[in-house]
Amino acid sequence: MSITEDEITEWFARQRRLPATDFPIGIGDDMAEIQLAENVSVLVTTDMLLDGVHFDLRETTLKQVGYKAMAVSLSDCAAMATVPVAAVVSVAMPKGFGEKELKELHSGIVLAGDKFACPLVGGDITCWKNNEPFAINVAMLSRPAGNEPVKRSGAKVGDTICVTGALGGAISGRHLNFEPRVKEAIKIAQMVKLNAMIDVSDGLSSDLNRICRASGVGAVINAGQIPISQQAGKAEEPLSSALNDGEDFELLFTLAPRECQKLLSKWKGPLPITQIGTITDTKKMQIKMPDGRLHDLQARGYDHFKR
Amino acid sequence: MSITEDEITEWFARQRRLPATDFPIGIGDDMAEIQLAENVSVLVTTDMLLDGVHFDLRETTLKQVGYKAMAVSLSDCAAMATVPVAAVVSVAMPKGFGEKELKELHSGIVLAGDKFACPLVGGDITCWKNNEPFAINVAMLSRPAGNEPVKRSGAKVGDTICVTGALGGAISGRHLNFEPRVKEAIKIAQMVKLNAMIDVSDGLSSDLNRICRASGVGAVINAGQIPISQQAGKAEEPLSSALNDGEDFELLFTLAPRECQKLLSKWKGPLPITQIGTITDTKKMQIKMPDGRLHDLQARGYDHFKR
Repeated sequence: MSITEDEITEWFARQRRLPATDFPIGIGDDMAEIQLAENVSVLVTTDMLLDGVHFDLRETTLKQVGYKAMAVSLSDCAAMATVPVAAVVSVAMPKGFGEKELKELHSGIVLAGDKFACPLVGGDITCWKNNEPFAINVAMLSRPAGNEPVKRSGAKVGDTICVTGALGGAISGRHLNFEPRVKEAIKIAQMVKLNAMIDVSDGLSSDLNRICRASGVGAVINAGQIPISQQAGKAEEPLSSALNDGEDFELLFTLAPRECQKLLSKWKGPLPITQIGTITDTKKMQIKMPDGRLHDLQARGYDHFKR
Repeated sequence: MSITEDEITEWFARQRRLPATDFPIGIGDDMAEIQLAENVSVLVTTDMLLDGVHFDLRETTLKQVGYKAMAVSLSDCAAMATVPVAAVVSVAMPKGFGEKELKELHSGIVLAGDKFACPLVGGDITCWKNNEPFAINVAMLSRPAGNEPVKRSGAKVGDTICVTGALGGAISGRHLNFEPRVKEAIKIAQMVKLNAMIDVSDGLSSDLNRICRASGVGAVINAGQIPISQQAGKAEEPLSSALNDGEDFELLFTLAPRECQKLLSKWKGPLPITQIGTITDTKKMQIKMPDGRLHDLQARGYDHFKR
């Protein structure tokens, strides 16, 4: 198959031109925004997680799965710098799953939701006929935090590219218990003017590519500046791990250099914010190696169409 | 397993008492309602549909699946007498599904959405590692239509019970191309005061039971008045088929007898509305047979926990 997940998403987006007054943000961002009244909008995201793909029930508890499913959607709220409001959860259960399994799942759902005052308000329970694998879908609503929701498409040539935390190797465990950067995202968006933001779900290279495509720009990142996680540091190729592993759920954002200076001088952590590069007018992604050479950088993160 | 789907839903609802000012309608109705600002609320529902359970891809096109998945959620909007606003769709695809399959699915999604000005605004595409079956989840937002959203819990002793259309035998085809009763529901809710409403998704007996449980009431229905569909008429037990088959997606509602008379005298169709019984204070469901005998009526519709 030659098409990528992003290309088919762009095709979907082209099929219906949504009126911007009713839908300020449509298909192709971390969340869509729906204008309900003057000055009142709501955002929505949906995420499906599958046993054997996003988690493995042979070594993961349903509580962990419930937590992760909610945290992935909470991370989408963070990516827009919006406030989570409520979630609805659907499950597809193997035959034989019942009350016990649902209650265990529920404990993980509320563990994540309670951290951000985002209650479970509804759901749907379905069962496979046989032992087909467990699947869970979370749809989450959020509201603007006072600032405008931050889109992927606003990156400007000359912007500084920043990332929170450290990247790579999440599969060794962090992907199950990560902390969605909801509070940090809102704080940052209220301190400075962000031009574009996304959460690193499929890997830095793929998610930076999404910002570049949506904004019609390019990027240069400095290999030596990429914050590499402890786990990725132990990998065979730590840099490749940090670029492409995915499921970091850190914030990747761009802003004017002056805004970046302002942010870094005022930011008190504890979550680190690192400058990793610059938005360019090349429309392609490049990476500057420690020896000064410039390589083209491909989006090599997780793609459901290219496994 | 002794617990029913409704009992576990009630357990979930008891775990968190949501403040009614922020969440006027919580877990356990067709949609949850979230108050976003004074006089501005949004409702949300989520529905998962599975290959081999809700449809069979050996004999159903993906266009039909896309239509059905949207129509099921549109029917939830109808059940509350609310206006559909937007939908987000997640899919879990068997390995090998790609662009062609997604575009076919998309054509069914927009076919249903366009009927009710309910655009697709976002989604999530995931793939199984192997040939696990196709699953689709639709989460849909709606807004009040001017009237208050109609809950399941408002049925009052003495209310007349009404149903639209004809029931039973949807599996022979109607479950794939039914018309969600969105427009009719809003029209009815604006003509008269409805006390309770639900859409008949799992079968008249199960969905009436949901109204009774939520409202703390009982019901008597008259077997001879139940509108039996052509398809159910051909079944071995047409009455049982109309009571328990499910996937009719008709409206089931209760209202004061005087309101009912007003509605029936003004209603011009073409969708029929039929009086089928009365809400009682017995807290149990009963059915009056043509010979005048009164039997207890059990919820024998589709239960994902009791296959």
